Amino acid sequence: MSVIKKYTIDRLLQRGVSIEDIAEVAFNYLTTNKNLNINLDECINTLLDILNKREILHKIILGIDIDEIVERNLFESPIMDVIKGDDGLFGVDELFGINIADLYGAIGYNTFGYFDKTKPGIIDRLDTSKDTVNTFLDDLVCGLAAAISSKLLHNYMETSNLNTL
Amino acid sequence: MSVIKKYTIDRLLQRGVSIEDIAEVAFNYLTTNKNLNINLDECINTLLDILNKREILHKIILGIDIDEIVERNLFESPIMDVIKGDDGLFGVDELFGINIADLYGAIGYNTFGYFDKTKPGIIDRLDTSKDTVNTFLDDLVCGLAAAISSKLLHNYMETSNLNTL
Amino acid sequence: MSVIKKYTIDRLLQRGVSIEDIAEVAFNYLTTNKNLNINLDECINTLLDILNKREILHKIILGIDIDEIVERNLFESPIMDVIKGDDGLFGVDELFGINIADLYGAIGYNTFGYFDKTKPGIIDRLDTSKDTVNTFLDDLVCGLAAAISSKLLHNYMETSNLNTL
Amino acid sequence: MSVIKKYTIDRLLQRGVSIEDIAEVAFNYLTTNKNLNINLDECINTLLDILNKREILHKIILGIDIDEIVERNLFESPIMDVIKGDDGLFGVDELFGINIADLYGAIGYNTFGYFDKTKPGIIDRLDTSKDTVNTFLDDLVCGLAAAISSKLLHNYMETSNLNTL
Repeated sequence: MSVIKKYTIDRLLQRGVSIEDIAEVAFNYLTTNKNLNINLDECINTLLDILNKREILHKIILGIDIDEIVERNLFESPIMDVIKGDDGLFGVDELFGINIADLYGAIGYNTFGYFDKTKPGIIDRLDTSKDTVNTFLDDLVCGLAAAISSKLLHNYMETSNLNTL
Repeated sequence: MSVIKKYTIDRLLQRGVSIEDIAEVAFNYLTTNKNLNINLDECINTLLDILNKREILHKIILGIDIDEIVERNLFESPIMDVIKGDDGLFGVDELFGINIADLYGAIGYNTFGYFDKTKPGIIDRLDTSKDTVNTFLDDLVCGLAAAISSKLLHNYMETSNLNTL
Repeated sequence: MSVIKKYTIDRLLQRGVSIEDIAEVAFNYLTTNKNLNINLDECINTLLDILNKREILHKIILGIDIDEIVERNLFESPIMDVIKGDDGLFGVDELFGINIADLYGAIGYNTFGYFDKTKPGIIDRLDTSKDTVNTFLDDLVCGLAAAISSKLLHNYMETSNLNTL
Repeated sequence: MSVIKKYTIDRLLQRGVSIEDIAEVAFNYLTTNKNLNINLDECINTLLDILNKREILHKIILGIDIDEIVERNLFESPIMDVIKGDDGLFGVDELFGINIADLYGAIGYNTFGYFDKTKPGIIDRLDTSKDTVNTFLDDLVCGLAAAISSKLLHNYMETSNLNTL
């Protein structure tokens, strides 16, 4: 595992988010479909594979950094209050998450949106946490869980239909 | 009203989708938030305003055209069956819808995804219709309803917070 | 090679675009950077790998299908003239291309835009062809060439910096 | 003018970027097309109108904030060096810029990419500045100039073709 990948996983853990937490969001979502035969380990391994992309690692690190800079009151601009309040018009946090999901195709868009609205598992815990600023982190987790789901669905559909199309 | 705008509204109607049908999806969604004081007429007028953008009209017309070309079996390529089956990997239909929502900011992403998963009102009727191909149409309607919602929320938040930030 | 991948490569050839044509656009672009040691074969192999994604194959097939349906005058709607004229406001053709580039990260955006404006190699030939409608095809080629470039740059940068970050 | 809009314009000025600098990039680009009769004042006024969107103001402020936090060495994570070096794989800076251009339709994508590669006017000055970190700022300016261009082109094309389509 590369240094930056291990660093990113540690940073997520320090903010209370484990690899399993993220994989579970995708697993619970995918297993609502009875036709899919997917287990939690596949979701975990898919996430570990997704975390080989440096562009994704950069977004996770920067997003967590921004959340922490807001917690430490280091921004001098009015953006402080916008981020702290998770202002619905802010839009940059969602951009980070969507852009992670996006790397695995268009089906990730609506999965991201669905997670962001229904807040399953760890996402709800992040969203309602009182002591920490998780404005970016919750969207990052939605994006990662949507990416797991898209990647697994693509694999599944590509193998099952290879000859019919 | 421009010729192309009227033409687009007529095409939607011929496919069973009225301006009110689309506005209602946004209205029912927005009014789950008790703090928002929005009525159906505002949703209708917002949609009529959105339909002044030619880029959006083009997507609606082309999307409906593709659905109809599939119905008439005019595509000779394997894309026929992909579109007819609303294959989860296809992705182009969602791209049309997301791109409409997108023009009104990042909050449209998750609203689009939420509508696409939960299929409120007319979207469910399109999705379960047996006789017609609505692969593009249902995503266009999700995109338009998400655009109404984003545009109204932006207006609402920008007027209410103008001075605080 | 899957049936659908072979089919897509044949369709491109029938429209006058070979795998080498597309790879050359990326190759000529990448080799303006003296620090990169990349050969044409790597560009070709990268493209062949990109063409394993069904979501990309679908966009290529549908884009070419639309160009041909316009040539055969099968659309009954005003979208005919919009596509035939490659109307600058149309926007859907660019969306197909961007979305292909996008799957390989954000650096693909500006490469796509740069190809679309400067029209190197085969892209210029498509754009100035008088007898055929290539409204979608030229953007698809820009997208594929940008995807090759992004994928190779990502590989290059990830291996060269693995330990520094 | 709202407090936040004025604040944003002041922040840009403190970083060496005036409204006129940005408008000039769009003006010089648009006037390479002899058919367009556009003057610098229109570009300036269009930019001032674009700066009424809070979502855009937020991206500008946060982008500049991040550049400054990197200058002041306040990030503790490895993202510091990634941003300082304007690492080609970083991708978040381009996302900010593209997302601004995007709000004005798909034609903004390639204009953004073209500016980002060719670096006209102020963009080159930002990019080669030795003393300051402008990783986000140069992409923000590309995005704003592309937005001006798209918005003016849309207006121009929609008025000129209103009846033909």
